[in-house]
Amino acid sequence: MKDIANQAKQDFIKLKESKPLIHHITNFVVMNETANITLAAGALPVMAHAKEEVEEMVTMARALVLNIGTLWPELIDNMILAGKKANELSIPIVLDPVGAGATKLRTQSAKDILEEVKIDIVRGNAAEISILAGLEAEIKGVESIAQSNEPEKIAKEFAAISNSVACVTGENDFVSDGNETIKISNGHLALSSITGTGCMATTIAACFAAIQKNTLQAAAGGLIYFGIAGEKAASVSDKPGTFHTALYDAVATIQADEISSRAKAEILTKNLA
Amino acid sequence: MKDIANQAKQDFIKLKESKPLIHHITNFVVMNETANITLAAGALPVMAHAKEEVEEMVTMARALVLNIGTLWPELIDNMILAGKKANELSIPIVLDPVGAGATKLRTQSAKDILEEVKIDIVRGNAAEISILAGLEAEIKGVESIAQSNEPEKIAKEFAAISNSVACVTGENDFVSDGNETIKISNGHLALSSITGTGCMATTIAACFAAIQKNTLQAAAGGLIYFGIAGEKAASVSDKPGTFHTALYDAVATIQADEISSRAKAEILTKNLA
Amino acid sequence: MKDIANQAKQDFIKLKESKPLIHHITNFVVMNETANITLAAGALPVMAHAKEEVEEMVTMARALVLNIGTLWPELIDNMILAGKKANELSIPIVLDPVGAGATKLRTQSAKDILEEVKIDIVRGNAAEISILAGLEAEIKGVESIAQSNEPEKIAKEFAAISNSVACVTGENDFVSDGNETIKISNGHLALSSITGTGCMATTIAACFAAIQKNTLQAAAGGLIYFGIAGEKAASVSDKPGTFHTALYDAVATIQADEISSRAKAEILTKNLA
Repeated sequence: MKDIANQAKQDFIKLKESKPLIHHITNFVVMNETANITLAAGALPVMAHAKEEVEEMVTMARALVLNIGTLWPELIDNMILAGKKANELSIPIVLDPVGAGATKLRTQSAKDILEEVKIDIVRGNAAEISILAGLEAEIKGVESIAQSNEPEKIAKEFAAISNSVACVTGENDFVSDGNETIKISNGHLALSSITGTGCMATTIAACFAAIQKNTLQAAAGGLIYFGIAGEKAASVSDKPGTFHTALYDAVATIQADEISSRAKAEILTKNLA
Repeated sequence: MKDIANQAKQDFIKLKESKPLIHHITNFVVMNETANITLAAGALPVMAHAKEEVEEMVTMARALVLNIGTLWPELIDNMILAGKKANELSIPIVLDPVGAGATKLRTQSAKDILEEVKIDIVRGNAAEISILAGLEAEIKGVESIAQSNEPEKIAKEFAAISNSVACVTGENDFVSDGNETIKISNGHLALSSITGTGCMATTIAACFAAIQKNTLQAAAGGLIYFGIAGEKAASVSDKPGTFHTALYDAVATIQADEISSRAKAEILTKNLA
Repeated sequence: MKDIANQAKQDFIKLKESKPLIHHITNFVVMNETANITLAAGALPVMAHAKEEVEEMVTMARALVLNIGTLWPELIDNMILAGKKANELSIPIVLDPVGAGATKLRTQSAKDILEEVKIDIVRGNAAEISILAGLEAEIKGVESIAQSNEPEKIAKEFAAISNSVACVTGENDFVSDGNETIKISNGHLALSSITGTGCMATTIAACFAAIQKNTLQAAAGGLIYFGIAGEKAASVSDKPGTFHTALYDAVATIQADEISSRAKAEILTKNLA
């Protein structure tokens, strides 16, 4: 745990120094939000989705975000195109399967991406990741509503059947590679009062994956950073407008020492092979 | 009037308890804004526009918003597809005919939707609703500029020739089912200083329609709630950036009692058949 | 210089009085931001991109913004369609070649637009304008990273080979028609901490072009106005969330006298033919 928090701090410092380019193919609801969170985190965003340029654009990037929030079939094709190029170049990819389980198009699109592309990290709510793990779930639009008692189990199971690190975010976040599972207790309820905070978490996980090859550590580091930012913003205001504004301020102004000192990360399982 | 305000208060309480899912097929300018206003009002937003999923998504929703702000022909086809499914399932629909009158595409698209789908509530500015009522109007882009002296008449006439409740919003709002017309005097000039506040009003009317079957009452309740939020936000700041932030805070924190105590609603016409 | 600042002040007053309609065909990241900046500047925005309506919509406008930020080929076709109609009607056009140089699609699309349409003003960062001027540049996504020592030269060269006024924005802004070059030193580093501020500068240049036929003066006036707004916003906060909010407030509340008194504009070259 100390290791995770300290490594997150080191990665945070490296992120600010290296300003990696994060290529997003993402949804229209959060496109501005995730660009601004990328900048606030110290990285550079680029949003580009046309089939004519996604392969060329991702070549310059240090991580790729695929977010299916306002999908249509051709966009998914373009995500797969970009993803395959990223795989070729060993550029890490983070998938946000927004609304998987809500419609056949969303479930199938997420599965198609996972089938065609090696995804490094998948971040979603309990319902989305459950569906992709073949478990039951209840989803209301893009919100997980059945209070799943087992986000830990969901994260583990999805990681076990996939080649990806699973991040199930919610009241607590669970990050698993199927072997090691980390529980992160940073964050604040106010994060659920505005749209796109899940997508922002995905983006920050991608920022960390850009500079940390251990994807379990990268995902955990990103969620710790964003969770602490949520806590700091909520200490300014828990009303959604002012909280939203404070969230960007917090992401931009957190100091490296706060990452390690405020991290609440706990290793739940570590199988010694 | 007392009845309208008190019912709005009851509906407000029911809205917060039931957290209905509001499916939006909407424009790219306000997609984030209307998702956040939906959350602030206590409901859940989902934005989905692909023809492959709109029918399935609306099945889960308690209301459907159709907003033509950055339209293209295929999007209108998808709105009609979703609208027909919503009609089948008696899910209420609110149409925002953004820029009707500005171009043939916008006018015709709004008319096509009204022709093909039973719309419960139409919310627009005086120019937009005039055009749809077959009256003259002057529109500048998506802004109504000819100061119409007769928003009350416009609302009545459109309601009379359609099966929809008409909401003409502006300095005062007029809500009519062709029989009964309600004047709502809540709101603040600062609402016109930022983009998308009309679209937000549409969204909140849809939130109320999700839990109140009387669409005249639902529309009035939504406009009262949003108007009061505008007043409260303007008391924090009337500068557009800080007003915008304060508007979300106000929508999220208004108490039920304020709905009834601050409502300025007046019944102008009630025909006793 | 005094002339430029004083003329900017006069144009600012005229802008607020005439509330011109600014038609944007722009990217999804900043669509809301640029609509709100247009309103804050005292003009009216309309966002419309469908081929079925762009020609009709631009007919009503006083300026057209073409911004290729999240482009795809059909969108560029529609920009050219709107641009040709604007040319016919002598409606000024401002092009923002976002990410030119980053991918072939972006570079070629910007060149296609410049080939097919008479563009009045092109605003970009040093890398983007370099590429279009046939000079070397290094771009990271949509950010100019090679610290160009010669933004002045880039602006001049591009203006000389095109029929457009070039605006190269950065630490200092350089505006050139190939003959006269103006250096503007307003602005603040915080503007680079949020996404879309370049696009906002483009939009405000278009607002000025709508009411000032001398495009060099129009571009300079817009950049002076926006730069002063950035300075004022940064005096409220240099953290990105609160700075972003303060930026809208500043754009909306700057007084005419501040434009002339705070302008830092210097004529670098004036060839007397």
